[in-house]
Amino acid sequence: MREYNRLRTDLVIANRILAFEEVVDAYGHVSIRNPVNPNHFYMSHSVAPGMVTQEDIVEHDLEGRAVDGDTRPLYLERFIHAGVYAARPDVNSVVHAHAEAILPYGIATGTPLRPVIHSGSFIGPHVPVWNIADRFGDTNLLVTNMDQARDLAAALADNNVALMRGHGFVAAARSLIEVVRLSVYLPRNARVLTTALTLGGEITSLSEGEINQRNQEAYGPYSTATWRTWEHWANRCGCGHMVTRPENPGE
Amino acid sequence: MREYNRLRTDLVIANRILAFEEVVDAYGHVSIRNPVNPNHFYMSHSVAPGMVTQEDIVEHDLEGRAVDGDTRPLYLERFIHAGVYAARPDVNSVVHAHAEAILPYGIATGTPLRPVIHSGSFIGPHVPVWNIADRFGDTNLLVTNMDQARDLAAALADNNVALMRGHGFVAAARSLIEVVRLSVYLPRNARVLTTALTLGGEITSLSEGEINQRNQEAYGPYSTATWRTWEHWANRCGCGHMVTRPENPGE
Amino acid sequence: MREYNRLRTDLVIANRILAFEEVVDAYGHVSIRNPVNPNHFYMSHSVAPGMVTQEDIVEHDLEGRAVDGDTRPLYLERFIHAGVYAARPDVNSVVHAHAEAILPYGIATGTPLRPVIHSGSFIGPHVPVWNIADRFGDTNLLVTNMDQARDLAAALADNNVALMRGHGFVAAARSLIEVVRLSVYLPRNARVLTTALTLGGEITSLSEGEINQRNQEAYGPYSTATWRTWEHWANRCGCGHMVTRPENPGE
Amino acid sequence: MREYNRLRTDLVIANRILAFEEVVDAYGHVSIRNPVNPNHFYMSHSVAPGMVTQEDIVEHDLEGRAVDGDTRPLYLERFIHAGVYAARPDVNSVVHAHAEAILPYGIATGTPLRPVIHSGSFIGPHVPVWNIADRFGDTNLLVTNMDQARDLAAALADNNVALMRGHGFVAAARSLIEVVRLSVYLPRNARVLTTALTLGGEITSLSEGEINQRNQEAYGPYSTATWRTWEHWANRCGCGHMVTRPENPGE
Repeated sequence: MREYNRLRTDLVIANRILAFEEVVDAYGHVSIRNPVNPNHFYMSHSVAPGMVTQEDIVEHDLEGRAVDGDTRPLYLERFIHAGVYAARPDVNSVVHAHAEAILPYGIATGTPLRPVIHSGSFIGPHVPVWNIADRFGDTNLLVTNMDQARDLAAALADNNVALMRGHGFVAAARSLIEVVRLSVYLPRNARVLTTALTLGGEITSLSEGEINQRNQEAYGPYSTATWRTWEHWANRCGCGHMVTRPENPGE
Repeated sequence: MREYNRLRTDLVIANRILAFEEVVDAYGHVSIRNPVNPNHFYMSHSVAPGMVTQEDIVEHDLEGRAVDGDTRPLYLERFIHAGVYAARPDVNSVVHAHAEAILPYGIATGTPLRPVIHSGSFIGPHVPVWNIADRFGDTNLLVTNMDQARDLAAALADNNVALMRGHGFVAAARSLIEVVRLSVYLPRNARVLTTALTLGGEITSLSEGEINQRNQEAYGPYSTATWRTWEHWANRCGCGHMVTRPENPGE
Repeated sequence: MREYNRLRTDLVIANRILAFEEVVDAYGHVSIRNPVNPNHFYMSHSVAPGMVTQEDIVEHDLEGRAVDGDTRPLYLERFIHAGVYAARPDVNSVVHAHAEAILPYGIATGTPLRPVIHSGSFIGPHVPVWNIADRFGDTNLLVTNMDQARDLAAALADNNVALMRGHGFVAAARSLIEVVRLSVYLPRNARVLTTALTLGGEITSLSEGEINQRNQEAYGPYSTATWRTWEHWANRCGCGHMVTRPENPGE
Repeated sequence: MREYNRLRTDLVIANRILAFEEVVDAYGHVSIRNPVNPNHFYMSHSVAPGMVTQEDIVEHDLEGRAVDGDTRPLYLERFIHAGVYAARPDVNSVVHAHAEAILPYGIATGTPLRPVIHSGSFIGPHVPVWNIADRFGDTNLLVTNMDQARDLAAALADNNVALMRGHGFVAAARSLIEVVRLSVYLPRNARVLTTALTLGGEITSLSEGEINQRNQEAYGPYSTATWRTWEHWANRCGCGHMVTRPENPGE
């Protein structure tokens, strides 16, 4: 029971962080897989992330349906989360958002997005761009059913981030804290790469070896270094009092 | 009576949102057509949008004159609104502003402004640029009479947005909430397009089919998705307590 | 006496506005000519503009010396103001600052700064760039004596703004409210021009006729339109309660 | 004793300033050499700079070890500070951070970072770029031992700033106030240079003579001009009440 309450609180914190750090505005959402039942995940119903409270969290199944008879309107794009959880057993948390700095990389073909700063390493070496029009023609660009969601998840494959042309991105990670960190540093990495192009000359990206070196336990969600930023971001958005560090992170 | 009070409150919220989201500064204005008398519209007298209260709302006619004998100084450019309402019976709300990110598109001929992100779809497929100098020569660039306003409305034609060279933009929509949404996402769409140019290569815009798909009822002012951002923006600018969602949106 | 108190209060407001709108940081200053004795001007002693109060205002003469025996440390660059007041009887208020967006125009020779948006019209048609090294060789780049100040004032000539290479700008106007407006819109005009270059193609500047049209009484300090932004900016920086509009602006 | 308390308070102020001015986020750190024992330095244990209090300050030795038996987790990159203090007896304060605007200059080879504005003069004439991969191959990019730290210090040599490829920068100065000033103006100088490239044409940097002119006593930590910005920044980040100016700065 306490476990569930902590998960809900962490999810509220994540929503507020993403809003405060301008990864989401009224649109965009973050979810976490149910650790007890991996075929379910938790996410707010249709509320702006900056206003989400614990009472707004709804349990969804992997078809994007609310369970427990919840009838509140759900996010139109909840299918994105369902699709990723279904395809990727290693993923426990998902963000979909429209952070401004990454949007150019979804519409311009000249420069692929790639990690160029150490905090951007969590993006991974390859960022596919998924174009909903390729299979679904003219749509409202939203992922509003499982067919589209499965196609997006297939494009994501085993990467950490996929861009969605003219729309936004989906990010996946093994924990909530890690997907938030990835989502906050993703736009920063994009801005740095964009500016580097202005400077001209050759641009050095992180090597695959460097990316692998950074994808280690030292950067797990409860490591000293990672916890520092979670606590920092929670304080900035007024959620410092909600933060609790587990005594036994492995529990 | 309650209807009128709600309209005035909504207009106050719209003013505060546009100020907080930096679409307007001390200059720029938003209006709404009188639903009872379509030859009149409501707009503040000459007050900075971020300071507008219900008492500041003045009823104007389609020549830009205050009705009911109101003698407070009016916005110099109220004619823009009068001109658009006269030419476009389908329009119920108008914004004129000088949001910084769209200004380059009014003075540079190299890249036409066009929708490239899903939230920019409401811009529509074509954004004309109106140059006041074409017909009126050297002016102070402001639209200060009905002749100029009619010329601008003719340039707008049946589009949703027109840029005004060296000055700003006018946006028109079927409802207040929609014109605010359009006005907030217009600069974001402009920034994304500007940055995409830095990345180089071909840039994919929204297709006309995609724009049409998004221009549906699901995005009406009281739909779940649209209401979410209105509530979000109202909260950000300190007007959360003023928001009321109609029980019967069609009333 | 009341006149002097109002001037001091207006000068405090101007300082706070310039700090809040990021025209100045700890450095930069704004002054106003003494309307009773045109050979004197008022400016704070060496305090960060965002912290200036009425007690900090010092009367200076046109050699940059404090009068009335004030011994508090003065701004190192007070000579800029003295030099402009001495050379330009039409000027009653001066700003010197380092607003970030104008700095590139002082060091790059590729694009001259010029007004491209209507709110930038007050810049005037020509913006000279003054390079202190031309006459004074290697300095600390600050204007720290009357010789340098006179050279800068000669470069300014009868323009409204001069850029100072690698350093900042000086702006001059007939009133305090106008020099503040000019100083806030100067960086915005610079950013718009910079971005327009990214878009490519021909860039349309304001014509001299347009600049002249805007330089009329309607934009005097106490006109409806100008007062609106002064009140707006004062409110934003927490000085709304200090604002007083003269009953007879001509007094 | 009072000396030590003042140092700790100054270090807290510096942490808060760097966080508020967005030089650091949860990551990055600032240290000061122990004036009594130059083989020790003070720095927070592993806490986000914006949350550092006096109780968080830990004394470190020049191998990056905590002294006095402090067992709290330390910053992973404390070795950077140890390495610079060991190599540079003239340095009394060090910052390591990842300010966004400087990151492009660490990955793009087209434009070397150099001082172009007077407030950027403290960068010095030459900014080396250190690439950890040159000697250490694929790492997590962090400086996590003394070998790497000594290599970085060797690259810094007698400059004031070194960029770290794909990671951030290290800045060194003779006093805490000066290293903070350097670190705040470093990103601004980078942004100005970046924008100047957009404008095109030749770009004028500060000359070595100008840099030398500015590196004088007038800009020492307790000079009128420097103190103004320290007080200003402290006020902005809510630490105005902690600021104390020594009666005898030379003590």
